[in-house]
Amino acid sequence: MIEASLPIGVFDSGMGGLTVLKELQSAMPAESFIYLGDSARLPYGNKSAHTVQQYALQASSELVSRGVKALVVACNTASAAALPQLTEQFAPLPVFGVIEPGARIAAQAAAQGSVLVLATEGTVMDGAYQRALLATNPKLKIHARACPLWVTLAEQGYASDTPESVTITEALLSHAVRGFQTSHLTVLLGCTHFPIFRDKLRTHLKAGVKIVDSAQTTAQQVAYALGRVAGRVGDKNHGQIKFLATDGVERFQRVGAYFFGQAIEAAELVVL
Amino acid sequence: MIEASLPIGVFDSGMGGLTVLKELQSAMPAESFIYLGDSARLPYGNKSAHTVQQYALQASSELVSRGVKALVVACNTASAAALPQLTEQFAPLPVFGVIEPGARIAAQAAAQGSVLVLATEGTVMDGAYQRALLATNPKLKIHARACPLWVTLAEQGYASDTPESVTITEALLSHAVRGFQTSHLTVLLGCTHFPIFRDKLRTHLKAGVKIVDSAQTTAQQVAYALGRVAGRVGDKNHGQIKFLATDGVERFQRVGAYFFGQAIEAAELVVL
Repeated sequence: MIEASLPIGVFDSGMGGLTVLKELQSAMPAESFIYLGDSARLPYGNKSAHTVQQYALQASSELVSRGVKALVVACNTASAAALPQLTEQFAPLPVFGVIEPGARIAAQAAAQGSVLVLATEGTVMDGAYQRALLATNPKLKIHARACPLWVTLAEQGYASDTPESVTITEALLSHAVRGFQTSHLTVLLGCTHFPIFRDKLRTHLKAGVKIVDSAQTTAQQVAYALGRVAGRVGDKNHGQIKFLATDGVERFQRVGAYFFGQAIEAAELVVL
Repeated sequence: MIEASLPIGVFDSGMGGLTVLKELQSAMPAESFIYLGDSARLPYGNKSAHTVQQYALQASSELVSRGVKALVVACNTASAAALPQLTEQFAPLPVFGVIEPGARIAAQAAAQGSVLVLATEGTVMDGAYQRALLATNPKLKIHARACPLWVTLAEQGYASDTPESVTITEALLSHAVRGFQTSHLTVLLGCTHFPIFRDKLRTHLKAGVKIVDSAQTTAQQVAYALGRVAGRVGDKNHGQIKFLATDGVERFQRVGAYFFGQAIEAAELVVL
């Protein structure tokens, strides 16, 4: 029997997954969370599936050993590479990834239109979003475009409005959606870093275009799934959040606050 | 006694150091080399000094265990964080970094003018180039500007001339040198990825500006230093190069060829 009072474990290669944590907290404010950012080895997006599986297993084991009632893989690369393995390894613990929820909502939103997946090079090449979209609706027209600079752009604070960043940010956002000037479009943000560009991206798209991000949709699915399992949604956990990082806790707190949308007061250094 | 026939060991967090290897090979065509790219953990630039020291020690130990007559740390971050430690650990093996050679040549070239250091955020914050420049010439006027997107830009092939990349690349290059439109300037490229932007960057600078890169200057220093140690410069090694990578050998070969300037036929996967 899993204790309702246990926190939900969340991990990512670094800070991007904090956009997912932010939405999880928003969806389940009474829950407690423990977040692990594998900052010693970030990013995962340019590493092989085998290596990512190994890193994901180590990160998950650390969280499970501390006691969690569910595991959220808040990283697209790790979700694509390791979700079946983690689900099997830690059964019956519920394990959630970020790809299927976003793909399902985007496929529903698109109906008979097109979906444009914006993600890292690794995620686009891997094809996990394309497969998940087609699994929901085999008639969808799917396009995918790699945005290799967006993660760095996001982590460097280029989404801010300092004069020198505007030209570069706008050029990159415009480039990503060039050729997709139609209202019959759903844009799926397939990287946990990308929600911070959501509002700016909208100005480069036609009115009526839907933007779906995997952070929001994952949080909704986790809340829904856990809510259906009696005794798993905490209501007396007072929404505590503990942060772990495998390197550079100062940088984790500083950059992470940008994605989490609020200050990160403390983070504990862990070795995996 | 160290065997003259041994290769020179070179390591970097990934592929950027291949610009250094290319210059080393050009300076010493008869030498053999063994290059290790720690692609499982790249990049080093956003990790703590302690973690980078640990990674650098593991990479160096792997090369030393295979037999090398000298070690070149072809990575700015590892040079800044770990050079004294590696020098002590592997004495009397000669160990070279990439910071001091570039800084010395840039300081000489600048004379009484200004030096603009372009590097990653980590290298700029660390201040190793600024210290090395001042150690050569305490009267220099030194400016440093972080180019956080350039490494990703370089690794994604944005330096190529595909129409969609020109706008973004030109915007980033122009941004890096804005405010430095003077002929009395020496630009020091303080990242092993940056030499591939050398020609394009020149079009954004006034005539007469000198551009110094750490790949060329390091190769010159290594050739000079080893040439002075009797029996250490091989002339019968036939210029063989062996490549090791800690992850994704296919990607290492594909992206690496771009920095090395020629095809990489094979790379061996190693676990550190």
